[in-house]
Amino acid sequence: MTDGGKTFRWPIRVYIEDTDAGGIVFYANYLKYMERARTEWVRQNGAALRARLENGISFVVQKVQLEYHRPAKLDDELWVSARVVNHGKAFMEFEQAVFRDLDEGGPLVEARIKVVCVDLERNRPRRLPDDIFQLVSSQTQS
Amino acid sequence: MTDGGKTFRWPIRVYIEDTDAGGIVFYANYLKYMERARTEWVRQNGAALRARLENGISFVVQKVQLEYHRPAKLDDELWVSARVVNHGKAFMEFEQAVFRDLDEGGPLVEARIKVVCVDLERNRPRRLPDDIFQLVSSQTQS
Amino acid sequence: MTDGGKTFRWPIRVYIEDTDAGGIVFYANYLKYMERARTEWVRQNGAALRARLENGISFVVQKVQLEYHRPAKLDDELWVSARVVNHGKAFMEFEQAVFRDLDEGGPLVEARIKVVCVDLERNRPRRLPDDIFQLVSSQTQS
Amino acid sequence: MTDGGKTFRWPIRVYIEDTDAGGIVFYANYLKYMERARTEWVRQNGAALRARLENGISFVVQKVQLEYHRPAKLDDELWVSARVVNHGKAFMEFEQAVFRDLDEGGPLVEARIKVVCVDLERNRPRRLPDDIFQLVSSQTQS
Repeated sequence: MTDGGKTFRWPIRVYIEDTDAGGIVFYANYLKYMERARTEWVRQNGAALRARLENGISFVVQKVQLEYHRPAKLDDELWVSARVVNHGKAFMEFEQAVFRDLDEGGPLVEARIKVVCVDLERNRPRRLPDDIFQLVSSQTQS
Repeated sequence: MTDGGKTFRWPIRVYIEDTDAGGIVFYANYLKYMERARTEWVRQNGAALRARLENGISFVVQKVQLEYHRPAKLDDELWVSARVVNHGKAFMEFEQAVFRDLDEGGPLVEARIKVVCVDLERNRPRRLPDDIFQLVSSQTQS
Repeated sequence: MTDGGKTFRWPIRVYIEDTDAGGIVFYANYLKYMERARTEWVRQNGAALRARLENGISFVVQKVQLEYHRPAKLDDELWVSARVVNHGKAFMEFEQAVFRDLDEGGPLVEARIKVVCVDLERNRPRRLPDDIFQLVSSQTQS
Repeated sequence: MTDGGKTFRWPIRVYIEDTDAGGIVFYANYLKYMERARTEWVRQNGAALRARLENGISFVVQKVQLEYHRPAKLDDELWVSARVVNHGKAFMEFEQAVFRDLDEGGPLVEARIKVVCVDLERNRPRRLPDDIFQLVSSQTQS
């Protein structure tokens, strides 16, 4: 990769809970997989989400674009990537993808997800916490 | 029925979100169906759950017994019953069942579920709100 | 409305199962609400999904765009709309929105969702069943 | 422990997807955690579930008893245990528990879960596959 190590990857195993009667992963569940990857990326780089919540700070998904190319199935081992590609004072935009492990056929799912930092008490956007802001700034500099 | 109209029934439609790769309703999801029925029974008989939460009162499931007899499938129309069979100052016990509509083969799933009233601030059991207490008392008198 | 009655609406109640620790509906769950509305729109206009599945025909979500404006909360009564805005031989595109009942503040969530008809045995797109094709054709004619 | 290493343990992280508006893990989701542990125990000891499904063999939960002692919360690191305590020709019974990592306060949740092996085509119980039967026999011998 040429992105200087800026893409984070998180492994996911597909369980029966994730599937539907079509025999594949229920499409809404990829949003869960992607949130897990973003959460682990944040955890690896600073405070955990619960600490934020307890300080009245929440991260709220504001915009989602998803493209489904091929389905994942029960027992699959997947990788979910997360990369910050844009940010403002109060938001971050991620590019994410889901890959089947050891599979060279390209991503199963691709997404662009915009997350806004919210002050829970005032129910309004607020600036990103300093540690997150510095992190995303360093990730999105060319 | 001989229970004097004390059994509450709530209709449920099975959607793809409820199913798993075995082609049937994922077994954990019956707990959702049963919670919907208990919630509608409470709603029909008093204040809504959110009002409770905002007053620091929550209802927490403490004990569950489930028996699965036959599976529900995509598109099925189900009925979920809820009946209070026992209560204390701080808890209620329900008998619940899931039936397929127009199906005479007996319940698909049967359950006994114990719900405790909790003071969220002190994180301890508290007595049931008066309206709920009177309701469950009237339901469980012989 | 001026759309000639082409917008379908389906009521949804928010239960505890739908919410997350932020106190609002978990954002992935709006995809479930929207699928329920599409499913009921199909049901109202022809055969049920299970009959399709049993004939080896599935409808697979291929593309999703979601915008989240305001959150729904526990006990909310919502309406989900579904309107076909485009189609091909093998796909349909829907515009969908989630509204809070009796709330004049505009949609909580808006989405555009592309659904492809798939031959399960060959794992390839196939033309829409005739009844669906005629339905979406009639809906998208100006 | 004195069980001769027969208890399997699987780590689980709590994500926002697992929580509800009460700020805790939604109680039905512990069934997912427990299924993940049973699945990994089976995987570690033989063929994967998808291979079974493709051979027309499914494992269906028939009976569940759950006791909830204390709630898990967002970001918690949990351990889920699984131990076969009884079996027949066509079924296995597990004792399972959920623990918070580094927490000496006892299990958060305890369960007993009966799983039946089913022939999907005939929709009837069938004997456990040989590898599973030998495994559970060796686990339940005193």
